[in-house]
Amino acid sequence: MTKNSSTDRAVLLSVVQAAADAAQRVTLAHFRSPRLNTENKYTVGFYPVTKADRDAEAAIRDVLAKLRPDDAVLGEEHGFREGTSGLTWVLDPIDGTRGYISGTPTWGTLISLRDANGPIFGMIDQPYIGERFIGGFGLAELYRGHETTKLSVRPAASLQDAILFSTFPEVGTKSENDAFRALSKNVQLTRYGMDCYAYALLAAGQIDLVVEAGLFAYDIQAPIAVIQAAGGIVTNWQGAPAHDGGRVVAAASEGLHAAALEFLSQAPQD
Amino acid sequence: MTKNSSTDRAVLLSVVQAAADAAQRVTLAHFRSPRLNTENKYTVGFYPVTKADRDAEAAIRDVLAKLRPDDAVLGEEHGFREGTSGLTWVLDPIDGTRGYISGTPTWGTLISLRDANGPIFGMIDQPYIGERFIGGFGLAELYRGHETTKLSVRPAASLQDAILFSTFPEVGTKSENDAFRALSKNVQLTRYGMDCYAYALLAAGQIDLVVEAGLFAYDIQAPIAVIQAAGGIVTNWQGAPAHDGGRVVAAASEGLHAAALEFLSQAPQD
Repeated sequence: MTKNSSTDRAVLLSVVQAAADAAQRVTLAHFRSPRLNTENKYTVGFYPVTKADRDAEAAIRDVLAKLRPDDAVLGEEHGFREGTSGLTWVLDPIDGTRGYISGTPTWGTLISLRDANGPIFGMIDQPYIGERFIGGFGLAELYRGHETTKLSVRPAASLQDAILFSTFPEVGTKSENDAFRALSKNVQLTRYGMDCYAYALLAAGQIDLVVEAGLFAYDIQAPIAVIQAAGGIVTNWQGAPAHDGGRVVAAASEGLHAAALEFLSQAPQD
Repeated sequence: MTKNSSTDRAVLLSVVQAAADAAQRVTLAHFRSPRLNTENKYTVGFYPVTKADRDAEAAIRDVLAKLRPDDAVLGEEHGFREGTSGLTWVLDPIDGTRGYISGTPTWGTLISLRDANGPIFGMIDQPYIGERFIGGFGLAELYRGHETTKLSVRPAASLQDAILFSTFPEVGTKSENDAFRALSKNVQLTRYGMDCYAYALLAAGQIDLVVEAGLFAYDIQAPIAVIQAAGGIVTNWQGAPAHDGGRVVAAASEGLHAAALEFLSQAPQD
């Protein structure tokens, strides 16, 4: 393998799998452990981070340092490392740490690769259930055990038949929350509590909309790649690219995306 | 096996396992299927029921009719069948149908057995993840693949360190919701979206409180048996038995239970 085989899909896929395997050894060792060590990352509010978050990201970085030394790396826990290839790995070792410390199996390890234009590949890995959702390099697939199934968003539903997800009901600022609630009143069903797993369900054709605010780049780059590969749309609340985070809307179809933006684009920046 | 071997733990356990296996064949065949058939059970609001709900309960009832013909059966979808043994099987074939139709793997099949005094055994089965939580007959266990682990609530946390779950933020009536929110403001973390899986997490020592309102007997009898067997407490919001449904609080310890009741018992009946 040459150092700059960035166009070689098989090589990149094997790197991603190795990185996810390394993370999984850490996350599963601590998941539901009575000794799981939570500390408070911020002093205002409850923003937990665990030893598992930090060690899992370190494990991914070790794999990347060995197999992709020329690529840059940006991770939630250990920051930015520059590269020379023009490619950047964007990592969230445990997306949904609140769910992780609660024992719910709907957190995920997010690994994505971006070039100057945005994400070109993403993986949402849920190792306890044993599901690995990938999108990019011309693929959109769910790996589970020995099974591989195609990921594809479902046919366009009307807004009143749509299922909407967000991580928790306290979405964003006051005006962001108002816009979210206005949208929520016009869909069939709103559910909470899934973190990145909601984006995976959208890519798998199970739900129609995911709306969040206050995200970071590492929260959303992998979901963007997976959903786009499965035929869906992810933007910010104004319809512009969302790969730097902030306010995000993911939709299964152009029609639903436009219908959701009618509510969400009303929210002033405050 | 005699017809009335109701005190024989091994026999009853094998009946429960056979019933759950029968339900699982139906629920997994429809789960995430593009042809999943949802119809609206009530005309006000969105209260979905699927062919999977009805067929899974029918499959359980077939097993019980064969193996336990003298016991009564009460199920969400197919009502009550009288018995002569003094024992009643209480069934919810898919607890969390909203989650089920959204593709989230945190719904469950609830199978419980009660005598005149209340539940004596319960199972929360999540077949997609492959977890079977059981409590009663002197056992409190999680079966997953070939592994069996003991279920045990975790040591008492103070209220401000507690993790609280409820299925959705719109808990109960206006006054019930006010009481829930007052409690929620005093815990470390409140999460939504898990249905019966939240009770399983409490029995497994992962979370501290589950609070809901407007439940039916078939929603709560299995969770009561599992949680009590794991050392936890489940009552209504006044501290009385909750096995007929209504307002429910499940707690990992007596101290947390008392602390939660201080908020919840304030809610007037409206």
